[in-house]
Amino acid sequence: MSMKTLDDLFVHFVRDIYYAEKQVLKTLPKMARKADSDNLKDAFEHHREETEGQIENLEKVFEILGLKARGVTCEAIDGILEEGKEIMEEATDADARDAGMIAAAQAVEHYEITRYGTLVAWAKRLGHTKAVPLLQANLDQEYAADRKLSDLAEGGLNKQAA
Amino acid sequence: MSMKTLDDLFVHFVRDIYYAEKQVLKTLPKMARKADSDNLKDAFEHHREETEGQIENLEKVFEILGLKARGVTCEAIDGILEEGKEIMEEATDADARDAGMIAAAQAVEHYEITRYGTLVAWAKRLGHTKAVPLLQANLDQEYAADRKLSDLAEGGLNKQAA
Repeated sequence: MSMKTLDDLFVHFVRDIYYAEKQVLKTLPKMARKADSDNLKDAFEHHREETEGQIENLEKVFEILGLKARGVTCEAIDGILEEGKEIMEEATDADARDAGMIAAAQAVEHYEITRYGTLVAWAKRLGHTKAVPLLQANLDQEYAADRKLSDLAEGGLNKQAA
Repeated sequence: MSMKTLDDLFVHFVRDIYYAEKQVLKTLPKMARKADSDNLKDAFEHHREETEGQIENLEKVFEILGLKARGVTCEAIDGILEEGKEIMEEATDADARDAGMIAAAQAVEHYEITRYGTLVAWAKRLGHTKAVPLLQANLDQEYAADRKLSDLAEGGLNKQAA
């Protein structure tokens, strides 16, 4: 697909994050099942529900752009999720596994934060005014999810693991 | 390599970010050459110098841990840099290329921010007290680099691209 102009790049990034969210949606239930801490389990389950809404928001963005909703493989998110999977499988210590899953989930959140941040800025510049609040809503949720994970980590999970 | 305990995970993440920084060090001069805006060129060149210092900090962390400095392939950073490379090659419009390179660089910064954030927290928990200021220094630089790129994007580069 073309990446010549900012319009092209905008569409590419929407497809990239759409793919990423769909992969995350598939992975979160597995993480919730593997989580030892009930608070962490709840956080993953809650974020799975949020992710469904984020995917719907992205489908509305595709509609605004007059495009069919479809993703494009994002190697960054694949790499982050693959590493998270390895941690889930290999960490035999339950507390270390929880701490590792938090770290993997935060890497996902930060990837999404940077992409939505860019998309909000570009949507404004390109005059896609109706897309802005949809992308901003997703960005705000990712920030909140990242903060929640930091609180969980600092609130004791890491301490138990060490 | 083992990822059973939090100690194992800590070492794995140090190796992961060491690999990432070395890849970034190789990529930044290419991005500086491709940048159209002089401010962006300067930002990439400045961050290349910072990255050299960050690699030295990580080598000190390896020394503290009594380990030989070596990286482990990080697919997340490879994916992010590969996408950045595609943007550099394909964006024919100079302003769009600059905007795309900023987005790619910010994805790198956010990956590093989340990893250093985790490493600082874990170093504290694991009692690697001497490693904490070295990892914190790198984290602070990545935050500052990300903010600088946001300022550059908002200060007109995106506007020109649209």
